[in-house]
Amino acid sequence: MTDSSAIKGGQPNEPGTAEKSVSRRSLLRIIGTLAGSTAMYSAMTEMGFAQESGYAGPPKLSAPPPGTSVLILGAGIAGMVAALELRDAGYKVQILEYQSRPGGRNWSLYGGDSFVELGGAKQEVKFDPGQYLNPGPSRLPYHHYGILHYADRLNVAVEPFTQVNYNAYVHNTEANGGKPKRYREVQADFHGHVAELLGKSIKQSALDQDVTKEDREILLEALRGWGALDNNMKYVKGRATSNRRGPVVDDGGGVNSLPTYSEPDTLSTVLNSNMWRSIGESHEYEMQTSIFQPKGGMGQIGVAFGRELAALIKYNCKVIDIHQDDHGVTATYVDSRTGGPPRKASADWCICTIPATILSQLPMNVSAKKKAAINGVKYTARVRIGLQMKRRFWERDERIYGGLTYTNQPNAVIGYPMSDYFSKGKGTLLGADVFGMDALNFTAKPPEQRIADALEYGEKIHPGQYKSNYECGVAIAWHRVPWMLGGNSNWSEDDRAVYYDDLCALDGRIVLAGEHASRIPGWQEGAVTSVTDAITRLHAKVMGG
Amino acid sequence: MTDSSAIKGGQPNEPGTAEKSVSRRSLLRIIGTLAGSTAMYSAMTEMGFAQESGYAGPPKLSAPPPGTSVLILGAGIAGMVAALELRDAGYKVQILEYQSRPGGRNWSLYGGDSFVELGGAKQEVKFDPGQYLNPGPSRLPYHHYGILHYADRLNVAVEPFTQVNYNAYVHNTEANGGKPKRYREVQADFHGHVAELLGKSIKQSALDQDVTKEDREILLEALRGWGALDNNMKYVKGRATSNRRGPVVDDGGGVNSLPTYSEPDTLSTVLNSNMWRSIGESHEYEMQTSIFQPKGGMGQIGVAFGRELAALIKYNCKVIDIHQDDHGVTATYVDSRTGGPPRKASADWCICTIPATILSQLPMNVSAKKKAAINGVKYTARVRIGLQMKRRFWERDERIYGGLTYTNQPNAVIGYPMSDYFSKGKGTLLGADVFGMDALNFTAKPPEQRIADALEYGEKIHPGQYKSNYECGVAIAWHRVPWMLGGNSNWSEDDRAVYYDDLCALDGRIVLAGEHASRIPGWQEGAVTSVTDAITRLHAKVMGG
Repeated sequence: MTDSSAIKGGQPNEPGTAEKSVSRRSLLRIIGTLAGSTAMYSAMTEMGFAQESGYAGPPKLSAPPPGTSVLILGAGIAGMVAALELRDAGYKVQILEYQSRPGGRNWSLYGGDSFVELGGAKQEVKFDPGQYLNPGPSRLPYHHYGILHYADRLNVAVEPFTQVNYNAYVHNTEANGGKPKRYREVQADFHGHVAELLGKSIKQSALDQDVTKEDREILLEALRGWGALDNNMKYVKGRATSNRRGPVVDDGGGVNSLPTYSEPDTLSTVLNSNMWRSIGESHEYEMQTSIFQPKGGMGQIGVAFGRELAALIKYNCKVIDIHQDDHGVTATYVDSRTGGPPRKASADWCICTIPATILSQLPMNVSAKKKAAINGVKYTARVRIGLQMKRRFWERDERIYGGLTYTNQPNAVIGYPMSDYFSKGKGTLLGADVFGMDALNFTAKPPEQRIADALEYGEKIHPGQYKSNYECGVAIAWHRVPWMLGGNSNWSEDDRAVYYDDLCALDGRIVLAGEHASRIPGWQEGAVTSVTDAITRLHAKVMGG
Repeated sequence: MTDSSAIKGGQPNEPGTAEKSVSRRSLLRIIGTLAGSTAMYSAMTEMGFAQESGYAGPPKLSAPPPGTSVLILGAGIAGMVAALELRDAGYKVQILEYQSRPGGRNWSLYGGDSFVELGGAKQEVKFDPGQYLNPGPSRLPYHHYGILHYADRLNVAVEPFTQVNYNAYVHNTEANGGKPKRYREVQADFHGHVAELLGKSIKQSALDQDVTKEDREILLEALRGWGALDNNMKYVKGRATSNRRGPVVDDGGGVNSLPTYSEPDTLSTVLNSNMWRSIGESHEYEMQTSIFQPKGGMGQIGVAFGRELAALIKYNCKVIDIHQDDHGVTATYVDSRTGGPPRKASADWCICTIPATILSQLPMNVSAKKKAAINGVKYTARVRIGLQMKRRFWERDERIYGGLTYTNQPNAVIGYPMSDYFSKGKGTLLGADVFGMDALNFTAKPPEQRIADALEYGEKIHPGQYKSNYECGVAIAWHRVPWMLGGNSNWSEDDRAVYYDDLCALDGRIVLAGEHASRIPGWQEGAVTSVTDAITRLHAKVMGG
């Protein structure tokens, strides 16, 4: 749902494919379209579940004709899911991978790793053991059934990701004298003023046309509780509001234990601080709790896939040409480190998960529509910075355990480590997570300067701590990663209408897959659902469908 | 902040004590009272922190006169904090404990444990290894600095407690045909309708007196984003609202991947469902994330204290008399299992952490005011039920990973295990967590019937799963626990005004401590802050203060 395109719901426009059987998912959609969502809910309940994912489980593939082979380009999540499922079904599978490791954007950087970006700047990662940065995906939402299925199958241990931390900060250089506020203060004040204003409207009969008399009484009661209003429906300093925004001095025990309540900000202060912009993210479907991360870094999923598929992956292969004919597909590649003579790999079929940024530069004999679609996919610019700190001052001194601080500075956020809470050791902060122009601005400077900038931004929020505790860092700019040239696909509604179906369609013996060929761009779930669909269609064709 | 009394803020009414030095906390309160909270915030920033707990760290006690002894009654959190700190300061310390284990209400029940309640009903806990129930406290809020300090000091490992789970249920037997809704649906619909109504009021100029023209524009923008409204400020079916309440069919990948959006409930449905009553808890100060639990059960804190203080605790001692004179304090006790001859333990001073329910029945020569205060403290009735299930159907089939389901049935909640997520093994549910009349109604029946009732309630929410997966359980009713006779102290504002200062005041050589002698009743932090204050005052008196 990071997709900004507002697809009109309810009337699915299925691209023309050769699907023979009606899936549970399709059946439900038909019921929903014909009979409305209540009927669909009933049908779903009958069928034994109360919500349907875009992922209906791993594909159930019958045995292909003996010896049928598939060449997979890219050992990211999509490529490795394809390899795993096709291997299990009985296909002969080979993956060519540009890098010397599995995972693609599923990646964690540890001490000892090094990385060279476009232009040649090399970064050596000097993190201590146990410290890491996820330059790519970092969250596993509860409804991303596909990627969770593989984490489960491959025994990758997960732990909660702390999406919401009421004690982390919201910071705006133009508000509150440049000092951060606690997340809970901003949220409580916004809720409280909204509740007070709506309560006032109701009491003044401004909404009598919209809310029945009986409902008005219930709504007032609900607003009073939810907004922490007093008996006069006012959001004022006192126990109720301090029980949301936090008191200045907490309740204590024994004598001398009275609390000191905090003073709520006025509505105007709340609105003009712009801090309210930071409090909605956790309500978004993909950010909602429960949400998880693999223990030890997101890259552990890629590592586990790579271990499972070790015999099938050929590393350090830079594909330079993809050619299909009536009999099969051949990829020509060179050693991605040394160049050297071109080599060839052939198979009956090909699943290409190479990102469109790269693929658009490769010779490949597919239809003009497919070419246009590949050229039409746009990608984000994105920067992530990791900063190892010698002590966890945010925990020890500021009581911030995981979660995110939001700022209007170019670094956008500070992310606190979401494991080893209360550790007396080191910790690695996410020092920036930036899209678009801010990302491009960051990368106008060399990596060491990006880190220096991130430290300056952090110092504004954690004065006296941020720079003095800094030990080492790494700054990944996805649009300068040689094998990506972008963060993730960035679909507009218009681009979807023009290109999406062509991008996904089987083209002869080649099918594309990856987050770019999904409606969940920028998420591993997009890669899994994309490739699950792609291999299902490919298999149907292999089987004469 | 569970205390329902609305203490009026800003004008602290400090009970008369012999505090000599001005603590940082007191200084801040004085600044706050004289100059307002902005000045206090400035002062706090100057002093190097931005919020003050009711807990200012462990007490700093100078060495007492050699041989000074303290008798501590009760090896709960308060008693063991006192023992640890006084021992470290150089006091001679002994604890008498009724039970055969440390911790008091800090307690986890594991397989092999057994428990006899008032009236003689005995329960054998048959949980598998790794399964447990916390009958008492289960959360460690981020701002409970005192109990977190000791968990840290005693190396008790903690893990996140999942307070909010958007995919757990809200259930009301009188709404939605008795079927549960997902938490995210209820919250999104409530927020959305609130935003739409307030937006309408603003557009109709109903609030022009209250909100400036400039602020109105910002507020409309804020409401649109926060409430997931469309461009016409309506909360309607579509991508935006499904991005909060969840779609019926998720976005997918490849072809055939369009989502099916869900239909929001009407305002009237939301209000009359009463489900909105369940969505505010996570905003409360003591429920806010980040929030933690000890790995393996809350009882691990008590176990760690008990290990640290093994030489100082005498178990199975039922105190039957407490007597003080000018020279010291003597407790008379018998073996709590076998009775037998009374024995005596004496010391110069006494810290009594016995709950007021029990203490009110013991002979103790303290002032009439103190007696009245002990008699005046009320306690809650409370029931907690643990249910071991042979498989984690809530995770495997319903994608609920930790958190709470809320219901209007007498069990009130279902709590899902907050560790070992995605485990293919067993799990133990919190099957009921009930206060007051509902708790008393539960305990009108024997333990096995309470469990049977809890299973019936759960079956309504997880049909076909709850009863069929049940293996074994335990039902603890705190008001029937022989050493407690109640859940926790339950202070009204009136009772506080009459009794609280007298309860906390040093009485000769005896001082009381525990959650009941705090303004954080029912929380371990109340016990820590209470006893920290108590030993500080006792020490001042020992030192001639």
